[in-house]
Amino acid sequence: MWASGSRLGPSLAALGPIRTRPYCARQAQRRGVIFRQLFEPRSCTFTYLLGDARSRQALLLDPVLETARRDAALVRDLGLELRYAVNTHCHADHVTGSGLLRRLLPPCRSVIARDSGAAADLLLRHGDTLHLGDLTLEARATPGHTPGCLTFVLDDQSMAFTGDALLVRGCGRTDFQQGCAATLYRSVHEQIFTLPEDCLLYPAHDYNGHSVTSVGEERTLNPRLTLSLEAFVELMNNLNLPKPEHIDIAVPANLKCGIQDPPPA
Amino acid sequence: MWASGSRLGPSLAALGPIRTRPYCARQAQRRGVIFRQLFEPRSCTFTYLLGDARSRQALLLDPVLETARRDAALVRDLGLELRYAVNTHCHADHVTGSGLLRRLLPPCRSVIARDSGAAADLLLRHGDTLHLGDLTLEARATPGHTPGCLTFVLDDQSMAFTGDALLVRGCGRTDFQQGCAATLYRSVHEQIFTLPEDCLLYPAHDYNGHSVTSVGEERTLNPRLTLSLEAFVELMNNLNLPKPEHIDIAVPANLKCGIQDPPPA
Repeated sequence: MWASGSRLGPSLAALGPIRTRPYCARQAQRRGVIFRQLFEPRSCTFTYLLGDARSRQALLLDPVLETARRDAALVRDLGLELRYAVNTHCHADHVTGSGLLRRLLPPCRSVIARDSGAAADLLLRHGDTLHLGDLTLEARATPGHTPGCLTFVLDDQSMAFTGDALLVRGCGRTDFQQGCAATLYRSVHEQIFTLPEDCLLYPAHDYNGHSVTSVGEERTLNPRLTLSLEAFVELMNNLNLPKPEHIDIAVPANLKCGIQDPPPA
Repeated sequence: MWASGSRLGPSLAALGPIRTRPYCARQAQRRGVIFRQLFEPRSCTFTYLLGDARSRQALLLDPVLETARRDAALVRDLGLELRYAVNTHCHADHVTGSGLLRRLLPPCRSVIARDSGAAADLLLRHGDTLHLGDLTLEARATPGHTPGCLTFVLDDQSMAFTGDALLVRGCGRTDFQQGCAATLYRSVHEQIFTLPEDCLLYPAHDYNGHSVTSVGEERTLNPRLTLSLEAFVELMNNLNLPKPEHIDIAVPANLKCGIQDPPPA
């Protein structure tokens, strides 16, 4: 059997009890969660559609301007009512679709963290919740990539949406937009790694073709967040990454839901 | 509420009883399915990792040569034993990773349809099954894109992997590799559309950032497969698509699991 972890380093099997990250949609029917992961290839952004099957209420998380009409078509195809267009934070690499979606699909409201400094219909603080029929999403403040980063946790803690705070085997950079490596480290360890180990984690981006991870995997295998606080800060402060290509367009636009409101008549 | 189907055409809500395509990983734990969707961006191919949480036996479906090492690392990270590297058909747009995976992760065996004409360790016919611990995948012959196309259906019919037979709101082309539009139409209607309407359908490709669909959606909303047989054949025979860029490299390679075996010593 090829499950030995010794040849190439640690694996989940080698490091402790077997963890499962299972999936079976039909058994989950009684739970009544509608879920879709969508992808925007230029910025490698994931947009998530989450809905309540009974009430048909839904939200889109981290929509991108260029793909917002695709997402609106899917909402319509599935017979959903879009309640919220939510951003995990004020993105620097793409323009949000939240402003366009609230125009396309009223009464959809735009949502972001109060600490982001951005304008939106609804400004969230740590502990605030969004409701979709029988479902509740809890907003947890996970600053560090930006001061206004939120992680959204489904009420049964089966899945969480981590934005740029935690990526598959990685994390968001901390060298612009008032980022702080030590703050990010504490956010991930206190607000995400304390979730159940089989909680699925859905990031805002992936650049390697992965789509999802889990708390157990990242606690064990994340090459950055398994370091000590000091080593993490040292690493993050010396990444020397180039400035994001679209930051000068994206951030000002994202402070206003991605599009300018028309001037008052 | 914005769920009216009348403004823009049909929607699921307008066309009949509410269909749900739900998802909740934690409730599915008892089912014990490990599932990951992976993406190769050049050919827009999805590779699927499917495993049994109890026995840790797993397979990779439609692996791509360029990303096979990524997939092998994930198998290892999750403490899985790779039993099979499976292709839904002999692809024309990328070179399969099945040959590399069987070298990297013995005793992994390569698998494809007998009707594909390709070489592999295991050649499947309609109705054959693959077993991973407590899970069973049924191979259904769904020819039309190629004569050797298989759709794989999980034993509880909660999910199926359709290869290029059925895509999200589309289907594979039928104008090369002995394709036949009428055959594809019958395959989809007889072998895929007869599955439960909430069965999730995972395609081999998506070019628009979608990741999954369902039987109910495609039976209602697929712009090609909702046509009559005659109209479908007419449409498919007049697509006038360019020849796939890599077909002259990919098909000969894929007839041999993507890589040549070394000559005998």
